[in-house]
Amino acid sequence: MNKISPSLQALKRIAQSVPTPFHLYDRGALIRRAQGLNQAFAWNPAYREYFAVKATPNPYLLEILKAQGCGVDCASLTELMLARAVGFQGEQIMFSSNETPAEEFRLARELGAIVNLDDITHIDFLRENGGIPRRICLRYNPGGDVTIANRVMGRPGEAKFGMTREQIFESVKRLSALGAREFGLHAFLVSNTTDPAYYPSMARMLMELALDIHRQLGAKVFMVNLSGGIGIPYRPQDTPVDIAQVGRGVEEQYRALIAGTPLHPMRVVTELGRYMTGPVGCLVATAIHRKDTHKHYIGLDASACDLMRPAMYGAYHHITIPGKEDWPLDHCYDVVGSLCENNDKFAVDRMLPRVDIGDLVVIHDAGAHGRSMGYNYNGKLRCAEVLLNEDGSFQVIRRAETPADYFATLDYPGLPR
Amino acid sequence: MNKISPSLQALKRIAQSVPTPFHLYDRGALIRRAQGLNQAFAWNPAYREYFAVKATPNPYLLEILKAQGCGVDCASLTELMLARAVGFQGEQIMFSSNETPAEEFRLARELGAIVNLDDITHIDFLRENGGIPRRICLRYNPGGDVTIANRVMGRPGEAKFGMTREQIFESVKRLSALGAREFGLHAFLVSNTTDPAYYPSMARMLMELALDIHRQLGAKVFMVNLSGGIGIPYRPQDTPVDIAQVGRGVEEQYRALIAGTPLHPMRVVTELGRYMTGPVGCLVATAIHRKDTHKHYIGLDASACDLMRPAMYGAYHHITIPGKEDWPLDHCYDVVGSLCENNDKFAVDRMLPRVDIGDLVVIHDAGAHGRSMGYNYNGKLRCAEVLLNEDGSFQVIRRAETPADYFATLDYPGLPR
Repeated sequence: MNKISPSLQALKRIAQSVPTPFHLYDRGALIRRAQGLNQAFAWNPAYREYFAVKATPNPYLLEILKAQGCGVDCASLTELMLARAVGFQGEQIMFSSNETPAEEFRLARELGAIVNLDDITHIDFLRENGGIPRRICLRYNPGGDVTIANRVMGRPGEAKFGMTREQIFESVKRLSALGAREFGLHAFLVSNTTDPAYYPSMARMLMELALDIHRQLGAKVFMVNLSGGIGIPYRPQDTPVDIAQVGRGVEEQYRALIAGTPLHPMRVVTELGRYMTGPVGCLVATAIHRKDTHKHYIGLDASACDLMRPAMYGAYHHITIPGKEDWPLDHCYDVVGSLCENNDKFAVDRMLPRVDIGDLVVIHDAGAHGRSMGYNYNGKLRCAEVLLNEDGSFQVIRRAETPADYFATLDYPGLPR
Repeated sequence: MNKISPSLQALKRIAQSVPTPFHLYDRGALIRRAQGLNQAFAWNPAYREYFAVKATPNPYLLEILKAQGCGVDCASLTELMLARAVGFQGEQIMFSSNETPAEEFRLARELGAIVNLDDITHIDFLRENGGIPRRICLRYNPGGDVTIANRVMGRPGEAKFGMTREQIFESVKRLSALGAREFGLHAFLVSNTTDPAYYPSMARMLMELALDIHRQLGAKVFMVNLSGGIGIPYRPQDTPVDIAQVGRGVEEQYRALIAGTPLHPMRVVTELGRYMTGPVGCLVATAIHRKDTHKHYIGLDASACDLMRPAMYGAYHHITIPGKEDWPLDHCYDVVGSLCENNDKFAVDRMLPRVDIGDLVVIHDAGAHGRSMGYNYNGKLRCAEVLLNEDGSFQVIRRAETPADYFATLDYPGLPR
């Protein structure tokens, strides 16, 4: 299994020293996911997954991915600082930002990161803040809708990211005049799709654009960056994407379009976040209240502050009660957190086994965009992160917040320090 | 004006020493709002507004409200700590929580706060964690839908808050047996309404319930707590609620139902958050990028991390460009932040004057649920809060986060400390 599936025994052992709620990650599952992805793209010798740090910005997890040959995709100053601390260097770092402040471009250049320019106006901005590198990547936005097999998958025409086709050509010309010699092409069209046709169809789009640029401008395109977008099955009945099939699909496009052209060998890279860490992490909470009013509620010690996706997107997260895996799902609950806001519900009308106060509750697929989207609404403190090793040992890889953390930006007498 | 409306000159002066983005609050406007509210309910001698701390949990603002006679409505441990630090004592504190951890009940009782019990099962929980007080408040949920003038305003039957009518009666009996002698009644039915009929109709519901409880159980109901729910006009064409009319409407219910009964004199209290601080604060940002692709974008140095409401709720926030108040609104922009997520848009297809890079941009009505819902997605740092005094002076009442704050919960070498 390349997703986390902790036993009640394992959870109880952890909860003895780490109070719930906490995010738990499975080291072995993370390694297996990285290995599966690398294998799917092994046909491309220079392939690299640049893990999207924003999904799970924890240096201990980044270390694990680094050991598997992954790079990092950073979007901000602090993400670049994290990458530097973990030891990522030069082109192991992709800097894919937008509305970028000057100091972030400067640090990205200082670290030798591949800068992925979001807009043509950023050329001058980068020139003044870090300088134009020899190799640079450009973010393409084809506009309109993205349709795969007659289904609208995304609406890049409404997205703030990337440049038009005309701007890509103009950017290559201007950057060439400023000393850039090799270009990457990047696009992000849809989010969280498990359709194996997505990456191949985007690879085709970017490879055709690369060939056009080469033909018309004589410029060298050294890389296509397929970005993120490959999703995970949040519901048990959903089928996970077959990553090997995705890799083969991209390879077919490569053989049809790039092999045998002057652009060969060309690097194919990815910036997956959710796909890498989503299923290897879960949020572990305790049922602390049970309430029967106009509906039946299970109240947890976790809240949307620990996992915002259900509140923000209405996202489904599967929930299990360890030790009751074989019990009938004969109770209908809203599983809720403690925020004074009615969207703080991890599940609505969910069929579960009977939940008793004190039961551990596992909220699955929280490894990506879980702790990283944590907030402090209602003065709630964000929880710890724990790494479960292959041998059953575990380590706290981020401590829980304390009141002193919560009050750190206030200079006021009488508050905890 | 009891909303903030800073001049370009004032903003430039602040921005010289406090880099944008920052939240800015108007001290005078806050005082005037508190005074207007107190006046509207002056007919009830024991009236008190318990400001909902979650809206704007800043002790300097709480101090201002305290001087106007307000109490605080707290929902968590850290909010109770804030109340204590500012000097709120005893029944100046309302503790309206749900799915409450044991330690929070204990601190609430230690401070002498009025505990507002969310569920009948919390009676035993409170008895074990802090003890049953002489005066206690109960949270009522009538179920079903709330209809005012044939319009569905809210769906309490779907809300996790409060108890059924039967449970309220049962709770009064059990609490009486455990030593409680006076009861408050609380309900929260709709959010952000500017309909002046809302509070009076809820007051009627709670007062009728109070009379039924008194008749059937002989119990003393000392208080009805109208909770929050009074909203603000986010769009310029919206009409603000006439708070004096609201006060009169509640007074009419009081005279018709309570005056002349053994329950007179009864306290009426409120727990307004958004109504108090929403319009007195704004988010001040700088336009740092302008982008023309398939649409026209203005990129700010602020993001959803500073104001999440547009991303989470699709909420409208009015935007102005100081110094260009009289310019024609002849440009259509998406005004966006820098998150790698396409919902990070403060406005979509908004007509504005031409925005130039370097322009200060004011996002209005951000005083409530702005900084308090801030998060660190993409590794973004949450911004400062500034208080503008009546004489034009200002003070930083919360500093901006630094990378060291962001990394505080990580024990990892090489990160900023």
